[in-house]
Amino acid sequence: MAIRIGVYGYGNLGRGVECAVRQNPDMKLVAVFTRRNPASVRTVFSDTPVVAAEQVLEYKDRVDVMILCGGSATDLPVQTPALAADFHVVDSFDTHASIPAHFAAVDKAAGNSHVAVISVGWDPGLFSLNRAYAQAVLPQGEEYTFWGKGVSQGHSDAIRRIDGVVDARQYTIPVPEALAAVRRGETPTLTAREKHTRLCYVVAKEGADKARIEKEIVTMPHYFDQYDTTVEFISAEEMARDHSGIPHGGCVLRSGCTGEEGENRHVIEYSLKLDSNPEFTASVLVCYARAAYRLAQKGASGCHTVLDVPVGYLLPVEGDVLRRSLL
Amino acid sequence: MAIRIGVYGYGNLGRGVECAVRQNPDMKLVAVFTRRNPASVRTVFSDTPVVAAEQVLEYKDRVDVMILCGGSATDLPVQTPALAADFHVVDSFDTHASIPAHFAAVDKAAGNSHVAVISVGWDPGLFSLNRAYAQAVLPQGEEYTFWGKGVSQGHSDAIRRIDGVVDARQYTIPVPEALAAVRRGETPTLTAREKHTRLCYVVAKEGADKARIEKEIVTMPHYFDQYDTTVEFISAEEMARDHSGIPHGGCVLRSGCTGEEGENRHVIEYSLKLDSNPEFTASVLVCYARAAYRLAQKGASGCHTVLDVPVGYLLPVEGDVLRRSLL
Repeated sequence: MAIRIGVYGYGNLGRGVECAVRQNPDMKLVAVFTRRNPASVRTVFSDTPVVAAEQVLEYKDRVDVMILCGGSATDLPVQTPALAADFHVVDSFDTHASIPAHFAAVDKAAGNSHVAVISVGWDPGLFSLNRAYAQAVLPQGEEYTFWGKGVSQGHSDAIRRIDGVVDARQYTIPVPEALAAVRRGETPTLTAREKHTRLCYVVAKEGADKARIEKEIVTMPHYFDQYDTTVEFISAEEMARDHSGIPHGGCVLRSGCTGEEGENRHVIEYSLKLDSNPEFTASVLVCYARAAYRLAQKGASGCHTVLDVPVGYLLPVEGDVLRRSLL
Repeated sequence: MAIRIGVYGYGNLGRGVECAVRQNPDMKLVAVFTRRNPASVRTVFSDTPVVAAEQVLEYKDRVDVMILCGGSATDLPVQTPALAADFHVVDSFDTHASIPAHFAAVDKAAGNSHVAVISVGWDPGLFSLNRAYAQAVLPQGEEYTFWGKGVSQGHSDAIRRIDGVVDARQYTIPVPEALAAVRRGETPTLTAREKHTRLCYVVAKEGADKARIEKEIVTMPHYFDQYDTTVEFISAEEMARDHSGIPHGGCVLRSGCTGEEGENRHVIEYSLKLDSNPEFTASVLVCYARAAYRLAQKGASGCHTVLDVPVGYLLPVEGDVLRRSLL
């Protein structure tokens, strides 16, 4: 019998989950739950049921795992604990500093009755896993994370809040020389500026002072002042034509040494090139929904992260098949 | 109290473990066990105790985890089950096709009393893990493994068995165009010849027929006939000077698609560049020895592979610290 999935919150991420579930024959999407008027929501696939969020508890026995697709700022801190009392849940909570508090709240709510897996995605998520593996294997080493080339939603939003800006898209780009040095096995100490540059495409209001906008961007504390930032003004048409996608990616590297006196060097790299950040994150959420279901079947409960879940639980086949096909 | 490690079998891999244990302050190397005369064995560090293999059972209460460093052809199929009855064990059994049988034998021997983790290293091992993660996240996709540039011991040995050959070193090298295509997100169907080339450095006996040796190499069934193979004859001095290292590496890639109609493409890559294949493999074995110990402390028993072990078990810190530092 297929694992019955619910999607709670329906934006880009929820749409990604709606698509991803169809790639997994052992799963079935029961419904998407929305705080909007369900009649107003257009799903990717016309046969996806849309249900009002307030009716979610009526689905307690019809949904095996609820995938939460709200935002980390205000949605998930409330929704994940609330739903973990009644469902097995998976979320992509990504406010790094608040993960311990979120973990504790979700763990308490899930108690002995439900399984939760939080902070699932690629960073936190797959990148976290790879930091952990690389650190375990090469304890004497240095670790680097580069992000991009990709769209930073937070930085794009920050630009949009500037007076005179109609639309903006910010790309984070690794500095090629820094990345190449780390890949060669060097272990430089890198400042924020030496690791990434920021490229901003901005649509300005007609008659707006572009020089002032550019200055406000490049001097914005934390977001841009520590980086070499390039601002390009484009038309709304160019924005729609060239920057409608949400690509992202990046890499986690660890450079470490072994041997009698550390004379041999090793570089471990994990890298992602993603056409669609939300769809890829959704795909990670979906395989961890399977893991949550399987953990529950084995009698587990409480809150987990990717660091606690064996990779075998992510796949729809049993151990003997895995060993034959993957080892 | 430190985790007490034993090393059973003392060649390049055992020497690597001897070095790697010193990088992990929560571990201590109790002894290396050898079938040779212990007095004749020179360890990397002069204070490493060397003990005759037949005395190993005297160490039943002095060793927490035994790391087996023998070969997969004849040593490990016998030694891992034999020792799993009395110790928690970790091995690097890498005969892919025989892993299911080895798993069954070790699982039976370990029974309810001991933990075993088999087939630990980078392939099988870290590469297997990354195949599993990538397949789980991108079920609609194609997977590629490239090896090298690196020394293949099996191919080097095959050349050494040819009449007139004094010494040989074979490097496996990915075909750059094939690797680049996969990294770009293409999903070509590649033959063995299209994925890797083979470069052989050979020291011939004085007066040997080099043309005949070269022909015997490039036409050797399975090892070389399916590849574009280059043979270079060098002197023994050049071999010693330029080819004494045992570098290796490679990458696992998965290219997959998501979205309503698979319109968005993603490339996941895991790559390793290793100065010393045995030392890196040893480092992987050592962190899985920690995992075996921690699994045993949690009440686990029987045979495991990397697919069954959460990454959190590989690290010497607890869950809350992991979540703060790695997620």
